[in-house]
Amino acid sequence: MSPTREPGPSRRRFLGGAAAATAGLAVGGAAGFGIREATAAPVAQAATADLGAASVDRAAAVVPFYGSTQAGITTAQQERLMFASLDVTTTDVQELARMLGRWAAMAARFTAGRPVSDSPVRDEQPPFDTGEAEDLGPHSLTITVGFGPSLFDDRFGLADRMPPELTPFGTIPGDAVMKPGLSDGDLCIQACADDPQVVFHAIRNMVRAARGTAVLRWSQLGFGRASATGAGQVTPRNLFGFKDGTNNIHADDVTAVQEQVFVPAAADAGPTAWMAGGSYLVARKIRMEIESWDTDPLTDQERIFGRTKSSGAPLTGGEEFTPIDFAAQADGKPVIDVASHVRLAAPETNGGARLLRRGYNYTDGQDPDTGKLAAGLFFIAFQRDPQTQFKAIQTRLGRSDALNEYIAHIGGGLWACPPGVSGAGDWFGKGLLGDLV
Amino acid sequence: MSPTREPGPSRRRFLGGAAAATAGLAVGGAAGFGIREATAAPVAQAATADLGAASVDRAAAVVPFYGSTQAGITTAQQERLMFASLDVTTTDVQELARMLGRWAAMAARFTAGRPVSDSPVRDEQPPFDTGEAEDLGPHSLTITVGFGPSLFDDRFGLADRMPPELTPFGTIPGDAVMKPGLSDGDLCIQACADDPQVVFHAIRNMVRAARGTAVLRWSQLGFGRASATGAGQVTPRNLFGFKDGTNNIHADDVTAVQEQVFVPAAADAGPTAWMAGGSYLVARKIRMEIESWDTDPLTDQERIFGRTKSSGAPLTGGEEFTPIDFAAQADGKPVIDVASHVRLAAPETNGGARLLRRGYNYTDGQDPDTGKLAAGLFFIAFQRDPQTQFKAIQTRLGRSDALNEYIAHIGGGLWACPPGVSGAGDWFGKGLLGDLV
Repeated sequence: MSPTREPGPSRRRFLGGAAAATAGLAVGGAAGFGIREATAAPVAQAATADLGAASVDRAAAVVPFYGSTQAGITTAQQERLMFASLDVTTTDVQELARMLGRWAAMAARFTAGRPVSDSPVRDEQPPFDTGEAEDLGPHSLTITVGFGPSLFDDRFGLADRMPPELTPFGTIPGDAVMKPGLSDGDLCIQACADDPQVVFHAIRNMVRAARGTAVLRWSQLGFGRASATGAGQVTPRNLFGFKDGTNNIHADDVTAVQEQVFVPAAADAGPTAWMAGGSYLVARKIRMEIESWDTDPLTDQERIFGRTKSSGAPLTGGEEFTPIDFAAQADGKPVIDVASHVRLAAPETNGGARLLRRGYNYTDGQDPDTGKLAAGLFFIAFQRDPQTQFKAIQTRLGRSDALNEYIAHIGGGLWACPPGVSGAGDWFGKGLLGDLV
Repeated sequence: MSPTREPGPSRRRFLGGAAAATAGLAVGGAAGFGIREATAAPVAQAATADLGAASVDRAAAVVPFYGSTQAGITTAQQERLMFASLDVTTTDVQELARMLGRWAAMAARFTAGRPVSDSPVRDEQPPFDTGEAEDLGPHSLTITVGFGPSLFDDRFGLADRMPPELTPFGTIPGDAVMKPGLSDGDLCIQACADDPQVVFHAIRNMVRAARGTAVLRWSQLGFGRASATGAGQVTPRNLFGFKDGTNNIHADDVTAVQEQVFVPAAADAGPTAWMAGGSYLVARKIRMEIESWDTDPLTDQERIFGRTKSSGAPLTGGEEFTPIDFAAQADGKPVIDVASHVRLAAPETNGGARLLRRGYNYTDGQDPDTGKLAAGLFFIAFQRDPQTQFKAIQTRLGRSDALNEYIAHIGGGLWACPPGVSGAGDWFGKGLLGDLV
């Protein structure tokens, strides 16, 4: 569906990906999948192609894996997500490092549309790759890895390398119902692509490669994207039917990306210098009470969000991207309600703090306890400092947001995503663990 | 991804849909979504379009709702599924009929890309439509409704109208672990489309419209199709990495569709005559033990299926669609193992009985009991007589299939899907309930 709303997505992804400069293994190495060149060629090619052209292009689209920052952050948001949290079971830092090395090699191959290995299987040997993505193409797959606060406990001697930004939040207002089985974890993997079987395959094989070193703690499939990060990417709708994340940081907002998303190099960073070029990932599984919401009058729904449902325009007028007039009054009351989501989440209310959001709608089927449809938003946000960004914003929202009547934060976590993997000799977190192995 | 493997999907769907003859409301009525004409025009149009052409086409593709048989049976299988089972809570047959009428009206609109209503909402009124599919297009949506055996109990006086084909199976070998909370239900809805948010929207709004009359019992999201029903549609892979359903009934196999899928009109059908033009739906939620499978040698995996993993060719040689030589021997043993899935499921082993399968891969995240990835196949099959087709085949598979070591049937059910809705005055099951209201 996206090209209606996002002309030329794969070309833009190629250019816009943070890792475009050093494509390494990903360029030219894909068995059977060409990488789109960043020229005018795609359009010319499509003009002579048959009906299937754009979808073929979409299946073959590659987001380069190697780069100074990890892909899957400023990458134009793909349609599907699988997110996994893992706990490390080994206490041997060498084993942990070897697994992170395997993950980097696998991520380089999967994002280029290649299986775990091209070697033939010997008799009595299980297949190297589980095989379900064999015919599918990379579909703009990105794999983003993060380290949770619990990894910095006494198992690996990493305590002094934990950045203060990674300090657990404690209990933010509204967080009382967070479930341990849906929260936290030593490691996380965010796999995003335009095909769900491709993201499932990536997570499954990385969990398989972790055997003996780490185990799956929890996972989540996101069925449709609920935010936009690409330049010109149209804002999608959440399951409340509203456009979500209109004021999100987009990849072309270079100042915001530099100042709010990635950790800068700092001369005084000391043992936390490994996070330069990294970003902090906050995830929240937000259950939506959709049956209650669906009985709420439209006027009240719009008051709660502060926007018009159909167009996404603020209630102070204009169209979706018109700046919001928070001072506007009508009948002696603010037009944008003081408890509205848009007011409480706005940078103006939060000292300029913004987030780069990559949320996905989800459903887990029926809630066995209530009989209702278990569905909502799997919220993901990247930022330079979650203490002054997500935590500050969410503390305000958790306390006062009119939306709280219809949502509950039931899971999530905080992870430090290290800088990108630079090439074949590098791996996720080599800057953190490299001198210990 | 599909056009690589399925040239011109929307055009074929338009022509191949069982309901193509009487498009009714669906033709021309879609607000903003053109219906593809069944001529050579699409290809000519794509030749001058930009990169987005095929995906725009895919989003706008309409499968006509009205017809003599329900869409979503022989329709070329779409990429995504949401399946819902509901229990009727009213004992008033008028209320049940009114709900089925609302469902038919909604299905006619949703499949044409339209919301629940175009009427403006009055103050203090909730929105008619939940809104999350507002910008998405119908994406070849089909909505297929069925009636479970339990609907024919004493609540509505329907006992003598229950076809013998709908008799519950009892316990088939291997069915011991079927969970009641994932099984059966008075009604089912199968929503299929090429976008997951479109199928979620359809089920959510139909469940909403059932309020006070029926409640959700269980539901399932399928993330990728695991069978092919369209002429020329390429066979996809299940989560064991094998091509699934190579010998499936495809829409262009007119004889098999007539003889094995739809219920024929019969002069002596008496009170069960309402099922002429209908089909029986069997669903099975099949958990796959993927961690165990992934440790099994490739040669054993291929022995169990009876096919080569990568190509899908039978172990007796050739390519995917080469007929299987069940008599072939090597070293004094059958090349196709006596317990192999392909042998036990073959029409040759089952008196010629075949199924029209529309399966989907699923994952529910992590199994809280085992810590493993909860994933598998949501199997759906349509047939004229489930007693001689699914039940007979599954009894043989449940007893002897070598695959049973790696799978478990944990849920599912049996439903009678009535014939198609013929036009605006008709509704799902009017032939069954029309004279009672």
